[in-house]
Amino acid sequence: MSKNKHFPDSKKENTMIREIYLDNAATTKVHPDVVDIMVKAMQEDYGNPSSLHRKGAEAERLVRSAAEQIAHTLRVKEKELIFTSGGTESNNLAIIGAAMARRREGKHLITTAIEHASADNPFGFLEKEGFEVTRVPVSPEGIVDPEAIVAAIRPDTLLVSVMMVNNEIGSVQPVAEIGRQIKEKNPKTLFHVDAIQGYGKFVIRPHKENIDMLSVSGHKIHGPKGSGFLYVSENARIVPIIFGGGQQNDMRSGTENVPGILGLGKACELIYTDHAEKMRRLYELKLRLTEGLEKLDGVRVNGPKVAVCDDAPAEIREKYDSLELPDTERPEHRPEAAPQIVSASFDGVRSEVLLHALEDSGIMVSAGSACSSNGQRHKSATLTAIGLEEPWLSGTIRFSFGMYTTEEEIDETLAVLEKLLPRLRRFVRR
Amino acid sequence: MSKNKHFPDSKKENTMIREIYLDNAATTKVHPDVVDIMVKAMQEDYGNPSSLHRKGAEAERLVRSAAEQIAHTLRVKEKELIFTSGGTESNNLAIIGAAMARRREGKHLITTAIEHASADNPFGFLEKEGFEVTRVPVSPEGIVDPEAIVAAIRPDTLLVSVMMVNNEIGSVQPVAEIGRQIKEKNPKTLFHVDAIQGYGKFVIRPHKENIDMLSVSGHKIHGPKGSGFLYVSENARIVPIIFGGGQQNDMRSGTENVPGILGLGKACELIYTDHAEKMRRLYELKLRLTEGLEKLDGVRVNGPKVAVCDDAPAEIREKYDSLELPDTERPEHRPEAAPQIVSASFDGVRSEVLLHALEDSGIMVSAGSACSSNGQRHKSATLTAIGLEEPWLSGTIRFSFGMYTTEEEIDETLAVLEKLLPRLRRFVRR
Repeated sequence: MSKNKHFPDSKKENTMIREIYLDNAATTKVHPDVVDIMVKAMQEDYGNPSSLHRKGAEAERLVRSAAEQIAHTLRVKEKELIFTSGGTESNNLAIIGAAMARRREGKHLITTAIEHASADNPFGFLEKEGFEVTRVPVSPEGIVDPEAIVAAIRPDTLLVSVMMVNNEIGSVQPVAEIGRQIKEKNPKTLFHVDAIQGYGKFVIRPHKENIDMLSVSGHKIHGPKGSGFLYVSENARIVPIIFGGGQQNDMRSGTENVPGILGLGKACELIYTDHAEKMRRLYELKLRLTEGLEKLDGVRVNGPKVAVCDDAPAEIREKYDSLELPDTERPEHRPEAAPQIVSASFDGVRSEVLLHALEDSGIMVSAGSACSSNGQRHKSATLTAIGLEEPWLSGTIRFSFGMYTTEEEIDETLAVLEKLLPRLRRFVRR
Repeated sequence: MSKNKHFPDSKKENTMIREIYLDNAATTKVHPDVVDIMVKAMQEDYGNPSSLHRKGAEAERLVRSAAEQIAHTLRVKEKELIFTSGGTESNNLAIIGAAMARRREGKHLITTAIEHASADNPFGFLEKEGFEVTRVPVSPEGIVDPEAIVAAIRPDTLLVSVMMVNNEIGSVQPVAEIGRQIKEKNPKTLFHVDAIQGYGKFVIRPHKENIDMLSVSGHKIHGPKGSGFLYVSENARIVPIIFGGGQQNDMRSGTENVPGILGLGKACELIYTDHAEKMRRLYELKLRLTEGLEKLDGVRVNGPKVAVCDDAPAEIREKYDSLELPDTERPEHRPEAAPQIVSASFDGVRSEVLLHALEDSGIMVSAGSACSSNGQRHKSATLTAIGLEEPWLSGTIRFSFGMYTTEEEIDETLAVLEKLLPRLRRFVRR
């Protein structure tokens, strides 16, 4: 496997106590270059971009330069970006902002059954405000059919919102195809893509894909928590959800989080440097883990797969041949499986029990999605939507990789699982 | 003047190019201890507080400990704090969240004529949503009369929102008295205080002062940009304005900005350590600058004063005797003048011209308030509300101090002004 460029200090802290962090879809370790730029911003470039003196002007210049960095990764204009406090705010601004901007023109909105709470709950809010929301179902692999979305579009449909990569099972929606078909049926319907798990993994081209709005979070790509942005096409009209001093063309008031924005700009630049190679590494990790899991007894991998087990039909094996990894660089050929997420269900083991048993071995994973509040357990909407049933449902674990994840960590995780599973199954009641 | 404890690295970067930063009401330099804690959080304690494994648990523990630090400074409960992305979001959440929570009970809201845009514009939004807003005027010193607020309260008044310290002229509202009178007239009316310029300067006791909600920003107190909190009394009911994974008891969804929250906790702790001494220093700086300004020709100082010029009536001189600095430690005896802000108007000089002339000498100040968007010039609502007229209005400058500001910088600023003013007045048309 090729060396992991740009993320050099990988394993420093693991020399003492083993720590295998496979929860990168929850959050990631911040890249040291991102930290450096933020430290400088806090101690030297600490001006308020709205201040008229040189310290303000310098902060404003740095923010603009970060916006240019980010805009370049999407081939959009710098002025089409709104900096937010993170992915949740980006999704809220897109969905509520777009619906409210045109509430006198229509009341109909469309989304899918497997959205993250930060998209689904704004729709819940809008339903209480009198909007009508259609939630389109997904296939057993967690993929939405573009035809199903298009069939739901009406003349008064203001917005379609679809997540690019599902945070629980890593299924990837055919965003470009959905975008194309939306605009064919109703050019006035806006298309929002929650790319919080997709940005940094796939090359995204909003123009080509007919995406009007795109949500991104910094802390999923080794950038700072509390940072994120919403791309809004200059042709789309939304209203703000936070009001005040009129910063960011009045679309998001509040003193800009300059260190957060500069850190985000750096993280975006880093993740898209030697990007294809980075994604190849992630897919190799995913293949390795998936194949290893499928060799264990009583384990199923959920969602679309990159690799398949030995006894799979030849045509599937051919499709996912490990020597032909998915092409993440061309939006129109985006694969169905994201590179960083592996969801697996374990027969006869409850996910919390397995999670804590893995933790005892220094391996950190997620039980379902970590993004819901303070460890509260909800029945996962995604796992339910793909038709996962007991005993699989309550024995589901998410493994997710980042730029620091190594092959050795995957092998170690598989070795630990092989030892743990028979032991846990012996003691846990079915 | 006593040594400035806890803010040790004061003047490092000023040895090369002189930099006298007197724009601390716009934003402040981050304290090195705050930076350190944030760096550690980004590189070691980078877990997601919602994750169930130990890295998540550790992040959650750290967030809770920061909440305890902050709660202690107000003598409130840790669970009464909601972390936000800053002061603007705190004001929005308080005002919109309180109004929307009880919109079926009433439609009437009260605020003052001199609020910051981050409070006034949420009221503007609510007006469009069918609420009725009463804006109470202020005295020529920028102080609101509690009687005027109480007179406006009706049985259907949901909320009164008053800023503690005005960001442009540093006038301090009699918050405790307002709170007492509100609850006397209508116990169901909630009382929100925008303390973005007040927290860290004054000791605040929400319980004693009948404050139901209190907005605070991190970057005004040498903490991180993109951080802040809203105190909400456990007896007050508001609804969220950002929806998602249900973090923070569903009041503010989105992965917690752990580094920002830890930095904020540290900044709050630091600012309230040896607090009386810190405030004494700021008042001494304010006295020094005010007295110096009033000795110059064609200058007037706006808002309530701590010091007065030599020819002021004896009773005023007595009131503001420099040996008896205001007591910032007792909410019921809060002075009318905040320690960190001096607003001055210069006859025959336009504020932008003076601002840039000062900048040429390395002195950074604000023309009016820096918190409105990208240097756009609005007629200041505060300066208009206190009845300031031309030529003073367009020649107004705000000087604001932080923990790094020194006596020498004030003297230097006065010396520069003394040289600059006659020169500028010669060239600038009246």
